[in-house]
Amino acid sequence: MRFLKVDSLEQAREKLLASLQEVFTKTEQVRLQEAAGRCLAEQVYCPEMVPDFRRSTVDGYAVMARDTTGAGESIPVFLEIVEEIAIGHPAVHTLKSGECTYVPTGGMLPDGADAMVMVEYTELFDEKNVAVYSTVSPGTAVVQVGEDAKKGQLLLDKGARLDAKSIGVLASIGRKQVEVFRPWRLTVVSTGDELVLPGEEKTTCKIYDINTSALCTLAREHGMEVVEAVTLRDEEELLEQVLKRALKSSDIVVISGGSSQGKKDMTAELIDKIAKPGVFTHGLALKPGKPTILGTDEASETLLVGLPGHPVAAMMVFELLIIWLQKRLYGEKEKPGIPAVLESNIPGAPGRETCQMVKLVQSEDGYIARPVFGKSGLMSTLTQADGYVLLEVNQEGLRSGERVMVHLL
Amino acid sequence: MRFLKVDSLEQAREKLLASLQEVFTKTEQVRLQEAAGRCLAEQVYCPEMVPDFRRSTVDGYAVMARDTTGAGESIPVFLEIVEEIAIGHPAVHTLKSGECTYVPTGGMLPDGADAMVMVEYTELFDEKNVAVYSTVSPGTAVVQVGEDAKKGQLLLDKGARLDAKSIGVLASIGRKQVEVFRPWRLTVVSTGDELVLPGEEKTTCKIYDINTSALCTLAREHGMEVVEAVTLRDEEELLEQVLKRALKSSDIVVISGGSSQGKKDMTAELIDKIAKPGVFTHGLALKPGKPTILGTDEASETLLVGLPGHPVAAMMVFELLIIWLQKRLYGEKEKPGIPAVLESNIPGAPGRETCQMVKLVQSEDGYIARPVFGKSGLMSTLTQADGYVLLEVNQEGLRSGERVMVHLL
Repeated sequence: MRFLKVDSLEQAREKLLASLQEVFTKTEQVRLQEAAGRCLAEQVYCPEMVPDFRRSTVDGYAVMARDTTGAGESIPVFLEIVEEIAIGHPAVHTLKSGECTYVPTGGMLPDGADAMVMVEYTELFDEKNVAVYSTVSPGTAVVQVGEDAKKGQLLLDKGARLDAKSIGVLASIGRKQVEVFRPWRLTVVSTGDELVLPGEEKTTCKIYDINTSALCTLAREHGMEVVEAVTLRDEEELLEQVLKRALKSSDIVVISGGSSQGKKDMTAELIDKIAKPGVFTHGLALKPGKPTILGTDEASETLLVGLPGHPVAAMMVFELLIIWLQKRLYGEKEKPGIPAVLESNIPGAPGRETCQMVKLVQSEDGYIARPVFGKSGLMSTLTQADGYVLLEVNQEGLRSGERVMVHLL
Repeated sequence: MRFLKVDSLEQAREKLLASLQEVFTKTEQVRLQEAAGRCLAEQVYCPEMVPDFRRSTVDGYAVMARDTTGAGESIPVFLEIVEEIAIGHPAVHTLKSGECTYVPTGGMLPDGADAMVMVEYTELFDEKNVAVYSTVSPGTAVVQVGEDAKKGQLLLDKGARLDAKSIGVLASIGRKQVEVFRPWRLTVVSTGDELVLPGEEKTTCKIYDINTSALCTLAREHGMEVVEAVTLRDEEELLEQVLKRALKSSDIVVISGGSSQGKKDMTAELIDKIAKPGVFTHGLALKPGKPTILGTDEASETLLVGLPGHPVAAMMVFELLIIWLQKRLYGEKEKPGIPAVLESNIPGAPGRETCQMVKLVQSEDGYIARPVFGKSGLMSTLTQADGYVLLEVNQEGLRSGERVMVHLL
């Protein structure tokens, strides 16, 4: 048997990080409306005090707090209305003792005022005077200058995946454009004489190609751009043609299938033939994920990835290597995992890490993680599993009742 | 003061469910490649046994298990190779005792065979004969017909959000098209004389319009289609024009802003003017979310929603009403919440539910939920909060140390 360059997950990850960093961290400017789902490639600082004026949080009257001392439900204090502020317009009149100014929610407090009295605690006495039935202290219902964010304060970290909240933050400081990482361009190839395209007629011994659809979806879910997706028969020339084209068009070429010994060698040999320096990892000490191949072509700056043919294994390895790489290079925050209690034992694999799919079942005070086993493990795993638990290489296995962290898939 | 039709969250939700169901549950056929992120509108059953042939999970020899009895590392059993199966091609020869057939991973077992011996446990003796160094039992390394999924078995439930896994499942049964819910068409309007569009110059007392960007992103994250998004001055005619246009183009019109008493009335009055039967909820007993308005126009089948002007409140109410409605009508599964331990007290609000934003902090054996307070609560809340905790209407508040379920936002 041929001696393979089998790597642990950690070794493979280190090699990935060391290769082709530059092409994977290119950035571009996009308009805010198109930035959702993209990954931020700049540190976003607050360009000014927010708010940059003293803002009321209620509809009511801006007052000097000390003028209201002693006011209560049955003892009003009378103040003269000297101005009515419209929202979006500056206050002009500087308040003096005994005066007040009407300010709507979000409006600007006039100089001299230091608190708001809600309109509900007041009563118009006549056109120019209002009765105040509440004592307020300085700062009541007022957002101070810079209270929400100070000038120069870090608002969003490089690597943030732009969701509705962060798009809101960018809008709040007036950003129209934002620097994000350029999507990785992918070619996805599935190989196998047994593969039939969805929608086509299938004879016995054939199976529908799952990997192309599943991997393209997974890649797009992480903001990648699929340049080409093809299903090929097991013919070296066909694969070579596609790979050569992909070196020109893509940053990553993902080849799945070829899980049998002979085919695995074909993929590796082909990578070594068309790419320099070629294969750097041939086999992964991970269950599932053994037949993983990694290589690079430096001239075209392309990463070539041979994935297992098994759909669940292919998706797992894509997640643990390619999406992991993206998170690391982008500085993206990990999504919080879900703490859970194991329902049954998970056996470890000697000398290998284990990635065990689990289903989450809600319990009284949290979640139970139910391992999804099955040698077949195609649809049954895909339909039942919510996520996975990662067992370290020298971990003996996990026992029923142990607490684990479930990563959603 | 005008008496408002204030509803609890539950009452508002019931009314929402009772209104306009039909327009919100329309479906359409889309191609599998375009179905990712969409919500499944059909029950998906398995159309055939999967696999529909006995499949090998290893590269090796299909054998009669009883022929290998007694074989071991130093005691081989010799079998005659009668056929070599290529992947994707049927086995022709029915195996007899003393015979074996080469089958690659994923290949079909011939009739007569009942187990696989991995190639690693064999050695070619000559061209026609192989030495087997392992005893296997019936079923070893074989996926039986229907073992992964039985014909007629439910694979995906109506309401499933189509991710990489479920797209994989659909591909595995050869689906090229799939029935999904038609995206809800939205018009998003933000009103306020204080609002400035991102990218434009801003003078004192003005603020950048956050809600339009944030709500459009939130809607799109849930598969909705934004037909129009506009920022308007506080002028009734302008708003009326936009709303009338929206009744024709949209399923939902979201109007945010108008959080001051006067403006709130304008939105409600305008809805009553242009829509029949008009407003059915005027005010929500939810903190934050009080100035929420709900109404319908039955002729055009449009839901009209007035949201608070405060960005965090607007997003929360959109989440708790509109996205909740979508999940309910689609039958979408809730994403698992994250169990956490409260770091500090959360006060309840008498007669109202409370939606408290929290930040998740990883602890030794799970998460701590740190409430994000702040009356200003714009960016500081948006940048810090990971999700929210919902306190029921008659809940006294929550104490530090209590276990809560955090819903990610």
